[in-house]
Amino acid sequence: MPKAKKEQRPAPRAAGAVSAPVKRGRPKKTEKQVKISFLGGLNEIGKNMTVFEFENDIIVLDCGLEFPDADMPGVDIVLPDFTYLERNADKVRGVIITHGHEDHIGGLSYFLKAVNVPVYATRLTAGLINGKLEEAGIARSSVINIIKPGDVLTLGAFTVEAIHVNHSIPDSIGVAILCAAATIVHTGDFKIDSTPIDGEVIDLSRFAELGRRGVTCLMMDSTNAERPGFTESERKVGGSLETLFGLAAKKRVIVATFASNIHRVQQIIDLSEKLGRKVALSGRSLENVVTIASELGYLKVPQGIIISLDEMRSYPDDRLTLITTGSQGEPMSALTRMASADHRKVHITPNDAVIISATPIPGNERTVGKVIDDLLKLGAEVYYSQMYDVHVSGHARQEELKLMLSLLNPTFFIPVHGERKHLAANAALGEQTGIPAKNIILADNGTTVTLSKKAIRADASVPAGRVFVDGYGVGDVGNIILRDRRRLSEYGLVAVSIAVDPVSAMILSEPVFESRGFVYVKDAEDLFSDAAEVVLEIFDKYTRGGRFDLPAIRSHIRDDLSRFLYEQTKRSPIVVPLIIEI
Amino acid sequence: MPKAKKEQRPAPRAAGAVSAPVKRGRPKKTEKQVKISFLGGLNEIGKNMTVFEFENDIIVLDCGLEFPDADMPGVDIVLPDFTYLERNADKVRGVIITHGHEDHIGGLSYFLKAVNVPVYATRLTAGLINGKLEEAGIARSSVINIIKPGDVLTLGAFTVEAIHVNHSIPDSIGVAILCAAATIVHTGDFKIDSTPIDGEVIDLSRFAELGRRGVTCLMMDSTNAERPGFTESERKVGGSLETLFGLAAKKRVIVATFASNIHRVQQIIDLSEKLGRKVALSGRSLENVVTIASELGYLKVPQGIIISLDEMRSYPDDRLTLITTGSQGEPMSALTRMASADHRKVHITPNDAVIISATPIPGNERTVGKVIDDLLKLGAEVYYSQMYDVHVSGHARQEELKLMLSLLNPTFFIPVHGERKHLAANAALGEQTGIPAKNIILADNGTTVTLSKKAIRADASVPAGRVFVDGYGVGDVGNIILRDRRRLSEYGLVAVSIAVDPVSAMILSEPVFESRGFVYVKDAEDLFSDAAEVVLEIFDKYTRGGRFDLPAIRSHIRDDLSRFLYEQTKRSPIVVPLIIEI
Repeated sequence: MPKAKKEQRPAPRAAGAVSAPVKRGRPKKTEKQVKISFLGGLNEIGKNMTVFEFENDIIVLDCGLEFPDADMPGVDIVLPDFTYLERNADKVRGVIITHGHEDHIGGLSYFLKAVNVPVYATRLTAGLINGKLEEAGIARSSVINIIKPGDVLTLGAFTVEAIHVNHSIPDSIGVAILCAAATIVHTGDFKIDSTPIDGEVIDLSRFAELGRRGVTCLMMDSTNAERPGFTESERKVGGSLETLFGLAAKKRVIVATFASNIHRVQQIIDLSEKLGRKVALSGRSLENVVTIASELGYLKVPQGIIISLDEMRSYPDDRLTLITTGSQGEPMSALTRMASADHRKVHITPNDAVIISATPIPGNERTVGKVIDDLLKLGAEVYYSQMYDVHVSGHARQEELKLMLSLLNPTFFIPVHGERKHLAANAALGEQTGIPAKNIILADNGTTVTLSKKAIRADASVPAGRVFVDGYGVGDVGNIILRDRRRLSEYGLVAVSIAVDPVSAMILSEPVFESRGFVYVKDAEDLFSDAAEVVLEIFDKYTRGGRFDLPAIRSHIRDDLSRFLYEQTKRSPIVVPLIIEI
Repeated sequence: MPKAKKEQRPAPRAAGAVSAPVKRGRPKKTEKQVKISFLGGLNEIGKNMTVFEFENDIIVLDCGLEFPDADMPGVDIVLPDFTYLERNADKVRGVIITHGHEDHIGGLSYFLKAVNVPVYATRLTAGLINGKLEEAGIARSSVINIIKPGDVLTLGAFTVEAIHVNHSIPDSIGVAILCAAATIVHTGDFKIDSTPIDGEVIDLSRFAELGRRGVTCLMMDSTNAERPGFTESERKVGGSLETLFGLAAKKRVIVATFASNIHRVQQIIDLSEKLGRKVALSGRSLENVVTIASELGYLKVPQGIIISLDEMRSYPDDRLTLITTGSQGEPMSALTRMASADHRKVHITPNDAVIISATPIPGNERTVGKVIDDLLKLGAEVYYSQMYDVHVSGHARQEELKLMLSLLNPTFFIPVHGERKHLAANAALGEQTGIPAKNIILADNGTTVTLSKKAIRADASVPAGRVFVDGYGVGDVGNIILRDRRRLSEYGLVAVSIAVDPVSAMILSEPVFESRGFVYVKDAEDLFSDAAEVVLEIFDKYTRGGRFDLPAIRSHIRDDLSRFLYEQTKRSPIVVPLIIEI
C-alpha cells in the first residue's frame, strides 16, 4: 500500500509567532463565559463557520460555502454572513480550518477581503486554500500558517490544539479549544478508520486524555447520526474496485469520484498501475487537487502513469483508466457531459465500464439517476452505490459517535453538522451515554450559545446564514428577487407598454404586449386584445378630470391585469407595465 | 386482524358484453406479430400507458400521469401523448387498469375525452376512477366495467385475464394478454406478500400455470430490481407502529402516509381502536380514499372512531390519532402546513409524536428532510424511515423478481416500470435465470416492440412521452416556454420600451427600463443609463437614411443589450423589447 508522506508527531509546541505551549491543567473555576455562534450553513446547522468569543478575543473555526438549493434559482454559491465578524474585526485573532472541503474553506477568499486575519491549517488544507486564494487574487504568503496535529496555538485568550481525525480527505483535524471559561472539543467532520490508506488513525488517545482531564462541551459531527453501526474503512472500497476492474478487464474503466477524496484517487491509481493501465483525469477540480496533493506528497503517483485526455487514443481501452468528476450528476461536470454525449474528448461506448464511486447527496438522487440512465443508453456498464460497495462515507455512524461521547465524557453537548433531524439523532446518542437532556443544546444557524463550566444556554442573536453570490455580486440577490424568479419560472411574464402625454393625460398609443415563459394559448390574440381593454379602462378611470396619477395607474395595471390573466388562464405571470411619457 | 371484503374467486367467465371464455391452449404457431408501444412515462419507462396492437385491434394497459420534475417549472402534471391512439381510435377496444394509483389512472379523465372506449378495472380501482371522472365531469355509468381476478375479457382479437397481485394498494392485478401472435404476461406493479393485511396472497399458482403452458413474453415491474432480498410484508409495519404508539402513549400521534395505502390506514385505525384513540383525517385525497374504500368494504372502520379535525379539541392528546397526507413533503400538503405552523386546525406541540410512514421518493429527500426538521423545531418527536421500520415498499425485490422469472419462464423479457438503471438491473436478473441477453429488450418511452413467437425487436416509432398540463391548458407548454422559464428563474428579465414614429423613423421618447428577478446592483441607475445609450445607438444605426426596419431593431436590441448586460453584470437576463409605434 502506498503511503502519503507521514506526518511527524511533534511534542506540543509553538507554531509561528502567536503560539505558546498550552497548560493542560483544568482551568480555574470561575463564572466566566465563552460564546459560541454559528454564522454559516444552509440546510446543515453549525457547519460552515463557527465563532468562539471570550472577553476581547474571537477565534473562528472554518470558513466554508454552500451550493444553492433548488429554490434559489440563479444563485451560484451561498456564503456565511460575515457581518458579526466585520463589526468585531479588531477582536478576531485567527481562523482555524479543520479540512480542505469547500464547505469548510470556500468562503475564505471572500472573508479575508473583509477581515484580514491569520489562517491556520494543516499542510494539504493550506495547499488547497492557497490555490483558491491565488484564483481570487489574494497573495498567499502572508495569510496561511501551516500547523500539524499536536500543535497548540495561542490566539489571544484561547489556546487551540489540533487533533488528527479520519475523514474523506487527508490531513483533517478536530480541535480542543481552551480558555478560562471552558474546555471545548470540536470533532470537525470525522470518522474512525482503523485501517486508513495513509496509515494515520484518528488520535483517539488524545481525545481520551482530554476526556480524562475534563471537557466542558463537545461539539460533534452529526451527519451520520441516524445510521446504526460503524462506517466502514476507506480500504474496503479498494477491494470492491479491484473486483469491478476484474469484471471490466477488457474495457476502459471510468471512475467518478469526489476530486478531494485523495485516498480514493490513490487506490484507483494503485490498482491501475498493478493492472498496467494508464490514468487520465477529467475535470478541472480533480486536476487541481491531484497536482497539489502530488506536490505535497499526499498522493503518490508513479512516474509516467498519468496521461492527457488526448493521449488516451494511443492506448487500447483495456489499458486505460479515466478518473472524472461529476459523481453527483452536476449539470456541467465532466461525467454529465460524457453521459449526454457532449464531452469534447471522451466518447462513451459499450466498451466502457463506469464506476460511480460516491453516494448521491440528498437532493441529487434524481440527477445522478439520469446520468446513470444516459450512460446505460450509450451502452456502457455502470456500477453504482445502490448495487455495489463502491463508496464509504467520511462521517462517523452511531457506534463511533457513542465511542467519542464515552471517551470525552463532556458536561455539555452541542451536536453540529447536520440538519435538525441529524442533530436530534446525535442528541439522542448523547442521552444514551448519560448526558442529561438539559445539558444538550440543539442550536440553529444564527444561534449564540453561552457556556460556562456550570451552565449552557442558547439565544438567537447574531446575523447568520445566507449571503447569495450570483455572477459578480455578493449579497445583492435578496428575497424579493428570489421570489420574483420563482414566480417567473412558474408562470413567465407579460410586459405591457403604453405611451401617454402626462400633461393632457391623453393616451398616445394602443397598449403593446410581449410575453415570455407565459403559456401559449390558441386564442392569445383575443386574450391580449381583451387585456388591452383592461389597460385602457384603468387609464380611463385614473385620468378622469385631467388628473394623471402615474403610480396609481402603474399599480392598477399590475393588479387588474394579473387578476384578468388569472381568470382567463389560471396562471399568474408577473405583469411588467412600462409607461412612456411623451 | 380485520379483513376487507373477500373477493369470490370465480371460474373464468364473461365480464360484460364484450367478453367470452379464453381458450387456454397455446396459440397456433404463425409468423403473426403483436406490437407493444410505450406512450407514457417521465423518468420511468413503460409506466403510465402501454399499447398492445394486433392486426385491427388495440388494447391499452393503464392510463396514468406523472408529476413534473424540478426542471419543468410551472407544469402541474405530465400526461402520456395520446396522439397515436387518437389516430387509431377506431381500433381501440378498451383500457385495462392494473390498480388505483395516480400513475396508472390519473390520465383517464383526459384520455376518455379524446377516445371514449370501455375501461376495465377491479372494484376498488373502479371506485377511485369514478371519483376522478366525476370531478372531471365525465358521466360514470357508461365507462367503467368492474372485473375480478380470474375474469377473462375478449377484446377484439385479444383475450385478457386479470391475475391478483400484492401491492401497496388493494385490488391490484397483473394481466395475461393472449392473441394469435403471443402470450404476454404483464405483472403490473407488484410484490409477493405471504401475509397481506387482507389475506389475499398474490396468485402465484396462476402465474405458474401460465408458465407451464408457455409464455412468449414477460413484462415485469423493475422498481426495486436494484435491491437484493425480498420486500417485507405490509404486516411488519403494524408491529413497528405498535411499538411507536407505545413510546408515544401520552402524546397525540400523527401518522403521515400515502392516501391510497389502504392497508396501512387499516392498521393505523385498528391500532387506534385497540388503544382507545379516536382517529381524525387531514388531507382531501385521504378523506376521498377512506370514503370510497369504506363504502366498498376495503377498509373496515369501527363505528364512531372517525372524528373531524374540529372535534379533536374535545379529546386529550393521548386519545387522538391523526392520519395525514404529505409523507413526501409536498409543498401544499397537510403535513407540510402543520410543520410550517400554517395549518388552520392542527397545531404541532411538544406533545405530538409524528410518524412518517413512507420512504422519500428519489428527488423528495430534501423536502421530506425539511418537514422533519421543522417538526423537530416545533418540539415534536418524529419517527421516520431512516431510523425506524415504519414503511415497506409495494414493489418486488430481486428474489421475488427471480421467482416470477422462474415461474413464468418466458421466451422473451421486457423489464418495465423504472428508470433505465432499474430496467438494466431487472434484465440482469433475467439473464441469471437463463434468458439469453438477445431475448431481453431494454425499451424506452416511444419504443414499439414487435413480438412474434420466434422473434422480438424494438424501434422508436410512436409519439410518446410528455404532454404538459399547466393551469387550464393541456399540451400548450412547449420546450421554448420551459427554456425561457428556466432562464427567467436564473437571471430574471429586463424589459425596455421606446416610442417611435415609424414614418419619420424618429424616436419620440427616452428608453424606459423595468427589471424583475434581475439582480439589484448599487449602480443600477448608471447601468440603465448606459443601457439606454446602447438602445439609442441601435436605433441610430438601423434608421439611417429614413429606413425603419422594426424586426431588425427588435432583434438587435435583444442581442446587443443582452451582451451589454452580461459584460456589465455577468448575468444573462431575458431582454424584452417593446416598441410603440405612434
